[in-house]
This record gives sequence, C-alpha cells and structure tokens, in this order.
Amino acid sequence: MLSLRSLLAGTLRREDMGDWALFAASWLRKCTGRVMLNPHRLSPLSSSSRAICGLSAKRRGIIQRKMTENGVTSRRGKVLTIDTMNPSVKKVEYAVRGPIVQRALQIEKELKEGAKKPFSEVIKANIGDAHAMGQRPITFFRQVLALCSYPELLDDPSFPEDAKSRARRILRSCGGGSIGAYSASQGIDCVRQDVARYIERRDGGIPSNPDNIYLTTGASDGIVMMLKLLVAGEGKSRTGVMISIPQYPLYSAALAELGAVQINYYLNEEQCWSMDISELRRSLAAARQHCNPRALCIINPGNPTGQVQSRQCIEDVIRFAAEEHLFLMADEVYQDNVYAEGCQFHSFKKVLFEMGPEYSSKVELASFHSTSKCYMGECGFRGGYMEVINMDPQVKDQLTKLASVRLCPPVPGQALMDLVVNPPRPDEPSYDKFLKERSATLNALAEKAKLTEQILNTVPGITCNPVQGAMYSFPRISMPEKAVREAKEKGQAPDMLYCLRLLEETGICLVPGSGFGQRDGTYHFRMTILPSTDKLKILLDKVKDFHLRFTQQYS
Amino acid sequence: MLSLRSLLAGTLRREDMGDWALFAASWLRKCTGRVMLNPHRLSPLSSSSRAICGLSAKRRGIIQRKMTENGVTSRRGKVLTIDTMNPSVKKVEYAVRGPIVQRALQIEKELKEGAKKPFSEVIKANIGDAHAMGQRPITFFRQVLALCSYPELLDDPSFPEDAKSRARRILRSCGGGSIGAYSASQGIDCVRQDVARYIERRDGGIPSNPDNIYLTTGASDGIVMMLKLLVAGEGKSRTGVMISIPQYPLYSAALAELGAVQINYYLNEEQCWSMDISELRRSLAAARQHCNPRALCIINPGNPTGQVQSRQCIEDVIRFAAEEHLFLMADEVYQDNVYAEGCQFHSFKKVLFEMGPEYSSKVELASFHSTSKCYMGECGFRGGYMEVINMDPQVKDQLTKLASVRLCPPVPGQALMDLVVNPPRPDEPSYDKFLKERSATLNALAEKAKLTEQILNTVPGITCNPVQGAMYSFPRISMPEKAVREAKEKGQAPDMLYCLRLLEETGICLVPGSGFGQRDGTYHFRMTILPSTDKLKILLDKVKDFHLRFTQQYS
Repeated sequence: MLSLRSLLAGTLRREDMGDWALFAASWLRKCTGRVMLNPHRLSPLSSSSRAICGLSAKRRGIIQRKMTENGVTSRRGKVLTIDTMNPSVKKVEYAVRGPIVQRALQIEKELKEGAKKPFSEVIKANIGDAHAMGQRPITFFRQVLALCSYPELLDDPSFPEDAKSRARRILRSCGGGSIGAYSASQGIDCVRQDVARYIERRDGGIPSNPDNIYLTTGASDGIVMMLKLLVAGEGKSRTGVMISIPQYPLYSAALAELGAVQINYYLNEEQCWSMDISELRRSLAAARQHCNPRALCIINPGNPTGQVQSRQCIEDVIRFAAEEHLFLMADEVYQDNVYAEGCQFHSFKKVLFEMGPEYSSKVELASFHSTSKCYMGECGFRGGYMEVINMDPQVKDQLTKLASVRLCPPVPGQALMDLVVNPPRPDEPSYDKFLKERSATLNALAEKAKLTEQILNTVPGITCNPVQGAMYSFPRISMPEKAVREAKEKGQAPDMLYCLRLLEETGICLVPGSGFGQRDGTYHFRMTILPSTDKLKILLDKVKDFHLRFTQQYS
Repeated sequence: MLSLRSLLAGTLRREDMGDWALFAASWLRKCTGRVMLNPHRLSPLSSSSRAICGLSAKRRGIIQRKMTENGVTSRRGKVLTIDTMNPSVKKVEYAVRGPIVQRALQIEKELKEGAKKPFSEVIKANIGDAHAMGQRPITFFRQVLALCSYPELLDDPSFPEDAKSRARRILRSCGGGSIGAYSASQGIDCVRQDVARYIERRDGGIPSNPDNIYLTTGASDGIVMMLKLLVAGEGKSRTGVMISIPQYPLYSAALAELGAVQINYYLNEEQCWSMDISELRRSLAAARQHCNPRALCIINPGNPTGQVQSRQCIEDVIRFAAEEHLFLMADEVYQDNVYAEGCQFHSFKKVLFEMGPEYSSKVELASFHSTSKCYMGECGFRGGYMEVINMDPQVKDQLTKLASVRLCPPVPGQALMDLVVNPPRPDEPSYDKFLKERSATLNALAEKAKLTEQILNTVPGITCNPVQGAMYSFPRISMPEKAVREAKEKGQAPDMLYCLRLLEETGICLVPGSGFGQRDGTYHFRMTILPSTDKLKILLDKVKDFHLRFTQQYS
C-alpha cells in the first residue's frame, strides 16, 4: 500500500499519502537530514488517504497533535486543498460556462495555432451575449456613457443635446460630479427615481417607490442577495426555494453555495413550457417533508425555455404563493424579448396589484431586471435593479446593510440602467435613431426566433417549442439507446456527449439540457438565437446534418 | 397582556402578538367573517412575543400545525421577517456606511430643506472616496474609457494616439469588439497579461503568471471569494481567519456572513500600528482552543491605521504563516499611497520570493489590488485584481467556477484596471500630463497626511500616529469618564457618542474607532485625509475646538 522505498525516493503519490506517512517521512527526514518528500505532493488527510491508512479518528487526532508538536505542520502541504475547501462551493455547478465552454476556448486556441479542423471558427451559441454575437450597441446609450466618462466632451458639438442633458443629470448626482465616486449602496438616487417611473409607465400607473428600488451588479447580484436573506434554519426547517426545471443555473449554483434546499418544479414541455399549479402543489408537498419551503422563483420570459407566461398563469402563481405563504422572486430580465403573436409580457407586480389589496397588500415580491438582455444586450456593464414589494421594513434595512458591504454597484452600469429606463423621448433629437436601432434589433430577434423553431422542427428526432420570448431555444432531442449507453459508460450525461461531439465536429458550442435540468430520460440542448440570420441558418443546417449523422452512427 | 378588545378592533400591536393570537384571530374571523387584523402588523412568532405568550416549544408546535391545517398560514403575516431571515446576515456590521453615515445623509437633506444648523455643509471624511472629495480623474484614463464606450471617437483627432491605441487593444480583446460583451470570468486575457507584467516590474522581475490573475469587482469581491473558499468545518474545526484590530470592516462583515470565526490580533499602537509576531502567536494559540485557524489577513499600507510595514516585519509574518500553516491574504490596495520618509511599499509576493524556494514554493498567498485608491481613486468603476500564489490547481478550478457564476467583473472596471497597470510610457504623447496629474495627487496626499498628524497632535487628549500611508488617520482620543458613562447608559460605544455629537455640532462625518475594533478602554476615530488642503485645515480646526468643548463639558 505504501512502500518505504517510495517514501525514501520521495516518489510517493498524493493519493497513497496519509498523515501518518508524512509523520514517518518527517522523522526519516530528521534522522537523515534529507527531504524525502516533495511538499507539492502532500495534502492534508484526504478522504482517499483516510480510507487507505484507515486509522481511527482518535488515533489520527493523536498523530495530528504529535505532528504539530514536532513542527511538521509546515510540511503538511497546502493549507487549501480540494479536500479542505468549502464543501458548499464544490457542490456549485454552472453549465453555461462549464466544461463544454472550456473545451470551446481550447479549440479556438488550437485553431489560432493552425490546427486542422473540419471548421474554421467556433460559433458560441451557449450564452446570451448579444454584442459578442455582433449586435451593435444603442448609439445614444454609448454617447451618454462616453460623456459621463470624459465630461470634457460636453463641449463637443457633435454630441446631441439630449445625450448631454442625460449625462449632466447623472454627473450632478455623482459625488464630486464623477462616475469614479462611490454611489449610495442602494444606487444613485436619480437613477432609482427613473427606474420607479419606468415601472409605473410599464405597469399602467401602478405606483412604484424609489425606496423599494435597489440597483445591482447585473440581475444575478440582486437574486443572490435576496436568496441570502431567505436562507435560515437547519435540518427539516432549512429554507427551501422552488425553482423551475429547466432552470437558469445561477439559481441552483446560488442555492448550493448558500446551503439552501433546491425544490424542483417541472415546466410542462407539452404545453410550451407553461407552469402547472398542480405541479407546484406536488413539488411543494414533497418538499415540506424534508425542508421549509419559503420562496418561489419564476423566470418570465423563460430561460432556457423561451416561454412567455399568460396573465392567467401569473395570477394563479400569485394566488398559490399567497396561500402557501411563499416569497415570490420574479426574474424578468427578458421583459422586452417577446416575439410570438398573442404573447405579451405581464409583470408579476402589475398582476399582483390588479388582483386587489387582499394580495397586493400582502404577497412579498422581488422583481429583477438587467441591462444585459432585451434590445440593449449590455452584459459587460453589469447593470441591473430589483424592486421589492411588501418587504418587512427591518428586513429592508438588513438588505441595505448587505448592499453597503460591497459599497456600491458599478456606477457606469447604474448610468446605463438609467438610460434603459429613461431613453430618448419622442420630442428629443435622438429619438428616431434610438427607435430605429431598438426596433431593428428586436425585429431581427423575432425573425431568428421563428427561423430557429422552424428549421429545428424539420429535423427528425428534434422537437422545438415556439421561442415565444427571451433569447434561447431549448429543443428536445431523441437519443439512440447506444449513445445513452456509451455516455453512461463514460460517466457523461447523454446530451453532454451529444454537445461535445457537435463541438468537435462542427465548432458549434451549445449547452446540454442536463446543465439546466430536465425530466429523466429526456434530452435537450440550449441554443441562443443571437447569431446573425445568415450565421444562424448555417448553424442550424450544421446542427441538422450532425443530428442525422449522430443518430445514424448510434443506430 | 393581550386584550380581546384590541384583537377585535384590529389595533393589536406587532410586539403584543404571538402565533396563538393570530390563531385565535383567524378563528374569530371565521366566525364573524370580519378581518380583525391588519396583516402588516403580523409576524411569525418573534422572540419578544415568544417571551410574552410564554408557551412551551411543544405547545407552539401544536398550534403551528393546527394553523397550517386550518390554512391560517397565509394570514401569518410576512414570509421574511427579522426573526426568520438569515441570522448570519443579521450579525454583519459595516461601520464605514453605518448609522453615523445614515444620520449624515439625513442632515444633508435637512440642510437642503432649509433647516438651521451651526454649519452649512456636511463634510464626509468617513470613506476613502477621493473623487467625491474633489480629486480629479486622470485624463488619460477617462479618454480611453470614453473611446471604449463610444468607439466612433477613435476618428476624433482631438484624442491622443496612445489613448486610441490602448482603447483599440482593449476593444480587440472584447467579444464583438464591445465592452458590452461578457468577458471571460477570470477577466479579459490581455488585461490579465498587463497585470502580470505590472507585478513583474513592481517586484523587480519576479515572474508573474497571467493564469494566476483574477480580475474582480473591486478588491472586496476578490477578498470575499477567497474567504468563501477557505470556510469549512463545524464547531471546533470551523475555519478561523486572523484579522488585524483595528481592521477594515469588510473582513468582519464577510466572516460573519460566511459564519467563519474571526480571530483578532492587535496592532501595536505604541509602535505606530506595527505587527508583533508575539501578538500573532498569542492570538493564534488562543484561537486554536475553539476553531481551526487557516488564514492570516494583512492590510498594508494599513486601513484604518495608515502604517506601512517594514520589509523585516513582512518577512517575519511570512515565516510565521509558513510555520503555522496559514494561508496569507495581503490587502495591498494602497500600494502607491506611501508618504512617510524612510517608508517604502514591499509587496508580500516580492518578499516571499526573496526568502527563497523553501518559502516561495510553499506559502499560499493571495494579494489584492483595486482601481479605487492610490492616485486614481476610481471607486465607482469597481475594478480590481487578485494574484494567487501556490494555490492548489484543483482549488484554482473551483475559484474559476465560482467567478463564472457571476459571469464576469464589470468590463469598464477591467479596462480601467488595464490602464492603471499599463499607463502612458515616457515615449508616449500622454506621458507628461499623466505624470503631472499623478504626482500632483500623491504630493497633495502626502502633504495632507503630514498636516493631519501635526494638527491633531496639537490637541490635548488626541494622539495621532504618523500617517505613513493609505488615506486615513486613526487618532486616539481620551474620553472623560462622564462621557463614557453617558454612552454606556445610552447603550452606545463612547466614540460613537463622540462622533455623533461631532456630526450634529460641526457637520463633520467621521467613523468611530469601535467600528474598526480597538483595545478595550481605548477610543479612536477614523478620518480620511482626502478633503482639499483648505477644507482639511478647517475640518481639523473644527475637530480641535469640538474636542476641547466635549472634554470640558464632560469634566
């Protein structure tokens, strides 16, 4: 199991190593004055080595102490190892930037270095990164950001007046008139006021209070902050949070990190990924056996599934949350991304207030928005906001405190958020151009959503729900038994095998459905609709050919 | 204790309310069909009401169940209350933006509304927010940021060529050539390369690997990520982290939130806030009785204490960390802020490698830097980086995964970080102006550091160590017994009473030493040296007058 020779030679492998061996080695070292071990090979007692040296905890304790007394600690190898790090962090998974994306980056490198591949470029359809896929920024937004960054440009006649007035207003509300100053932790006052007014316009006049607006570092930041507040209890009373399956993996990742219980409710693929209250009830009842369900998360329009929820469905969900005493978290970052005819975005807040005081005075709701999606797609600025409704004032103070520890969200992102909620008005010089740019982007997305659904549904073995909104298709793929077996043997999810093969053979980077969750025995992938129409057509044809080839090879 | 009348009238106050009362109320409601209670007044069983209704846990459990059976849950009031929220978050404190700052904002409002005060403006010397205190941004940095935000400006002849070439290089490395695209989670490649080269120049050629550089959302983000990785174990084996007292409260806040054990080691005020290895040993030995100390945090130059550590001291600390098997976290965000003669910044990494392979091959170190301090003071952009040395490769993968869940640090902040580590070179057109602006800022800070120390030390009852570096003075104030008693009666820290009085009487906003930690029976405040020289003089004179008045009043 462990040879003295290997010990003397210092060729001991990490996995053969237990603390007792280090202890022995340290003594040998003291006798011979020679270092027998490469410290890089050593690690604190790992589960494997524990199994190997198989000592009682007590015995190990004694050795640990002896080692410390003998100053061997410093030869114990690294302080921080995979065995001694935060176990909750190890549980975190994030498929959108997971192994498949790592491999894609590797392949790009190989191509740069002249490697021969059956394709000339990697097409990344794995992440909702509009600008990376060639979408142009809104001119007005960038003009204002340039003016805020370098106010000397306020004297430049080539900048439109409305851009300058926006920049002046933002700068006036920054400490020292600079976006380089910290803002209030909750966000710049005038930006929060503009957000509140935007929400009121969006929701047909239902009032919004700037004190309930928190500017955030993208929507993710707000979602994580809210989950942080909600997590409490141990064992059976540990906080559980209901999330849709398929989900956006930020939720599972945050819950794993916080050690909260993830409660899955399944979307109804047959009904275009709609939400069933009966499924919510099933999932909640099951969860109540082992945890304390306290919150319900909804993504509308849906990521990765692209559905747009009906007003009726939202009303039912709110009633369910009220009855079951659940805190509602509405991820509404795709609120401008609605394409399908007859579909319309309804904010949870609007529906909540239209349901009357019995609900609007009671149901606790946090709604999230971002600068990263919709028609602007400004992911890199990490701008966002959340609005909290019916939040306990003392909890709100705690939320503000929590925000203050991180000092403030990035101010350029706050400025951008302000422009999103306060774009050029019809009477302003930049209005026409703004409208033209916004419509062009949204129309192109609508066209690509239709195109994606149509082409994918022509492929035998692929069925794709209509992409009603958001930026993704999440088609179901039939997987030959042989492929499933091979994947299982490799310890891979079958759709991971599928996507890896697709990447290697075509250079197309998609995310396997297993990264978002799906009903057992079903397989999917998520593909963004962001590539240019021409590129998207090529991409879809390549997927088609690959799927036929793949199915054939495994039949 | 609880009258049926108040119950019927619905005038019951929250603090008089226990679950059993809600239960009763719900039954009354069922009988009468009238809502007896304003749901806003209700909350789940609070500690106070627990005391009041004084039921056994068992009895309460029965009632809870009965309530659920009877569907009363939805009338239980809020899901998320101060009693049911995350207890770790409640423990978090952050003095730099604590009650005193809240009051300062309030006073500013009152002034705006025309309230009569003995002062016309609030001077915020509570936070290291250079631009808010009137410091101008570096022109070159802002030119490049404007070019990155609005690339159309690349054709504008009024921008210098070196600014344009920096902008082009950054944009080339962004997806789709836009800072609106997500970057790699670890940060933009070329920025990480520039950071590595900067570190090599700074540390006299000691190699730095871009793979060890992580760009962050300010330094705070990196510090929290590292602490997250380190936290593990329960009870006596729970991770403990050594932090200096006085400390920057981000550390105590993050440790409280993560449920890690805070291990205090005291800086030596008599020796200009230096670190004593003997004190480190004392603190570590005490901690080993009840937790598992795994990391040692150092802030150099010091916040809030402004000391600059000697090379010898750093060497001793590294040796201590190696012997005691501790992970080193070096907060070096003030590395350009060194003013005192004979003082010099030594990076922990440089000293570590100069100590030879026995240490440089073994000691695990994370070092943090930021765009927020030094001569640029660009806090609002939330830019920063961390370099990890000797980190276990598997842990590094976990760190990268953790970073990827937040997608990426703000790209404008990454661009700014790039400019900080890659400023104009002597052969470039912007060099002279850059140098002039940087020197002006650093010289002014040096002058104000001296001025602060000198004036404060003229005040009987105030003793101030030299402000060798960073941006703060942390003078010790003698507190009359009467004042201490009054504070204790009010349940306030004595220096909180002092700072609140100072704020009300003079409009000067400082942070009490108790917010940073200090030896029992000693009292301090933290004051930034950032106000303009003229303003600083006025401020210091006002502090002087106040202190004399305060001492007199309480003698």
